[in-house]
Amino acid sequence: MLIANAVLADGTKRHIDVKGGRIAALLPADAGVPAQTDVLDLAGALLLLPLVDGHIHLDKTLLGLPWLPNQAAGNKVADRIEAERNVRAARTVPEFETGSNLVRQVVASGTLHMRSHVDVDNQLGLRNLHEVLKIREHFRDLVTIEIVAFPQSGVVRSPGTADLLDAAIAEGADLVGGLDPVGIDGDLKAHLDAIFTIAERRSVGVDIHLHDGGEGGIAQLMAIAERTVATGLKGRVAVSHAFALGSVDTDTAARTADALANAGVAIMSHGPGGAPIPPLALLREHGVEVFGGSDNIRDAWSPFGNGDMLERAMMLGYRANFRHDHELQLAFEMVTGAAARVLGIEDYGIAVGGPADFVAVEAGSVAEAVAARPRRKLVIKGGKIVARDGVLVV
Amino acid sequence: MLIANAVLADGTKRHIDVKGGRIAALLPADAGVPAQTDVLDLAGALLLLPLVDGHIHLDKTLLGLPWLPNQAAGNKVADRIEAERNVRAARTVPEFETGSNLVRQVVASGTLHMRSHVDVDNQLGLRNLHEVLKIREHFRDLVTIEIVAFPQSGVVRSPGTADLLDAAIAEGADLVGGLDPVGIDGDLKAHLDAIFTIAERRSVGVDIHLHDGGEGGIAQLMAIAERTVATGLKGRVAVSHAFALGSVDTDTAARTADALANAGVAIMSHGPGGAPIPPLALLREHGVEVFGGSDNIRDAWSPFGNGDMLERAMMLGYRANFRHDHELQLAFEMVTGAAARVLGIEDYGIAVGGPADFVAVEAGSVAEAVAARPRRKLVIKGGKIVARDGVLVV
Repeated sequence: MLIANAVLADGTKRHIDVKGGRIAALLPADAGVPAQTDVLDLAGALLLLPLVDGHIHLDKTLLGLPWLPNQAAGNKVADRIEAERNVRAARTVPEFETGSNLVRQVVASGTLHMRSHVDVDNQLGLRNLHEVLKIREHFRDLVTIEIVAFPQSGVVRSPGTADLLDAAIAEGADLVGGLDPVGIDGDLKAHLDAIFTIAERRSVGVDIHLHDGGEGGIAQLMAIAERTVATGLKGRVAVSHAFALGSVDTDTAARTADALANAGVAIMSHGPGGAPIPPLALLREHGVEVFGGSDNIRDAWSPFGNGDMLERAMMLGYRANFRHDHELQLAFEMVTGAAARVLGIEDYGIAVGGPADFVAVEAGSVAEAVAARPRRKLVIKGGKIVARDGVLVV
Repeated sequence: MLIANAVLADGTKRHIDVKGGRIAALLPADAGVPAQTDVLDLAGALLLLPLVDGHIHLDKTLLGLPWLPNQAAGNKVADRIEAERNVRAARTVPEFETGSNLVRQVVASGTLHMRSHVDVDNQLGLRNLHEVLKIREHFRDLVTIEIVAFPQSGVVRSPGTADLLDAAIAEGADLVGGLDPVGIDGDLKAHLDAIFTIAERRSVGVDIHLHDGGEGGIAQLMAIAERTVATGLKGRVAVSHAFALGSVDTDTAARTADALANAGVAIMSHGPGGAPIPPLALLREHGVEVFGGSDNIRDAWSPFGNGDMLERAMMLGYRANFRHDHELQLAFEMVTGAAARVLGIEDYGIAVGGPADFVAVEAGSVAEAVAARPRRKLVIKGGKIVARDGVLVV
């Protein structure tokens, strides 16, 4: 198969020769289209890297069900945890079904790799993990799904959870998660002891939800960086949200960034609406890997979201006050290359020998694609069209 | 014509009898569809009020032109004013064309009324006004366009602008605008003197861009409220952005809200990405009319935006940390009824005798429509379909 007249991110127009699902050659397009039977002419459409969602909750979404008004009694993380327990108890449709609805929607929008957090607590046990493992298996040819065993109800304050997290890894989860060691669990050392012990024993990475803001949040980031170095997990630890970095002065943020960079701790942001966004450009300048994710999509936490990572890049750029092209390119990098590096996806990138995975859109540049979020003309995986005009065709 | 099986915002299903472009009757849908030749069956789609954009810049947009990277040298309002002057000087396509591109796009997304600010300064004179007056005339059967003569380069610091603003009103602008009386113009009293004098003499309303934050911005809001009462313009003055309200403590915001409510000064927000959002729910509770607008759309100021006011309601809700249905309904009200009241659109609302103006979407409730921003199935004006599935058909 030949993908003809594709414009790449660097502005060059190419014909892409695809053999066995991989890129066999990137030919200059001014030579004309070679005589060949199977030609897909993109007529100058922009060919993007496949999108990567660094933070999704496949087990939480209620996508495809009738609208359920948010029921949290207050505005704190603890209120939302409680509200979600009620929604979960009242649920009659399995998470496999709603999570599958979401996977279909995100693949149709061009996402071919994702990291999903999955709730593990002493009420649920490993039930949600089993549902998401089924989703992963069901969609294995379409999308790669990395799973974080996520202690949504805390570890210290929810006895038995540490053992469940460990068991989750044994059953197929890829990373161990954490949650506000101070704000929810009330014990920084005990929380980090628990999750880093599992990470070391199982030799897996860590991804910690940290909503705690201000100097308290910064102290936790510094402790996480320190623990990462001490356990030899450099490059395998991420902190999701890290609102604290957006709520302190620039000097403090820069100093914390240096510690995170030194420890190889990555920072995930979804471009929060009601909380401060970490200073993405500053973090990047200081060597911190920043990556993007959807976070909650139409679930007990949030009514918003749709899993479109090009729209997420827009939201990251909008919230970070990005306006220049190099800034919009950073937002795009957060939902493509940077997220792929954090997730450890080695088979990634538009280059000879790489996978024939692409997203085609009508846009003049990556910056324009982020700002305008055009409909996905084509999503191509392994040289096969899997979605057309935003609709899954497999 | 009969619009059959429409679900209204209150959840009731109705047949809507349309005669002469107006709503002749709202019939209960359980009676079955009356035998009639011209029936448009919505099959349970949600019928929304037409959307209202309370703040757009039809003359600034570059929509439809090749992507132009942002060129501002810095991150201040003054840097962006300077960058825009350069873009304007290099422009070869008339504002009529790009503004018309935007009008077509916004009508296709369900907006039937808008307030456009139009740059007036001593370099431009009334050139942009003339372009937007042409746009208004061209689209007069499709959309109502209210025009604010907007001193983008200041009034005091840009000698001659006050006379130009006055002339703009004489030539057809509907309101006089203002811009950061302190931050840009450097003279609160002189700025307010200039624009309120014109408003009084011409008997028109006022809409002031206020980016200045903190206590300084609050002092300007208080001065605007005071001046509004003194000039008898209660209910005819709006402040756009008012970031200051989002950057002070709750007591200060509440006290300022009381003064604004007492003076009948409305507050416009576009759900800013990089600046604080005013506390929308608090303002509303204190009796302030809060309304929404797009602000910049793909112009020298911002690469973002598309004029979709349902998406704007989402952005307002997202930034305001809204999650509950009543909050999402407030965001919707900001881009429908509240904006219509501020713009003085009397012929508005889904009721017997009212205009047959509607937007049909697939959603179970207004809250869901805001969160999900579904494609516009139909946009109907005066009983006629003007857009279908997001595409203009007139």
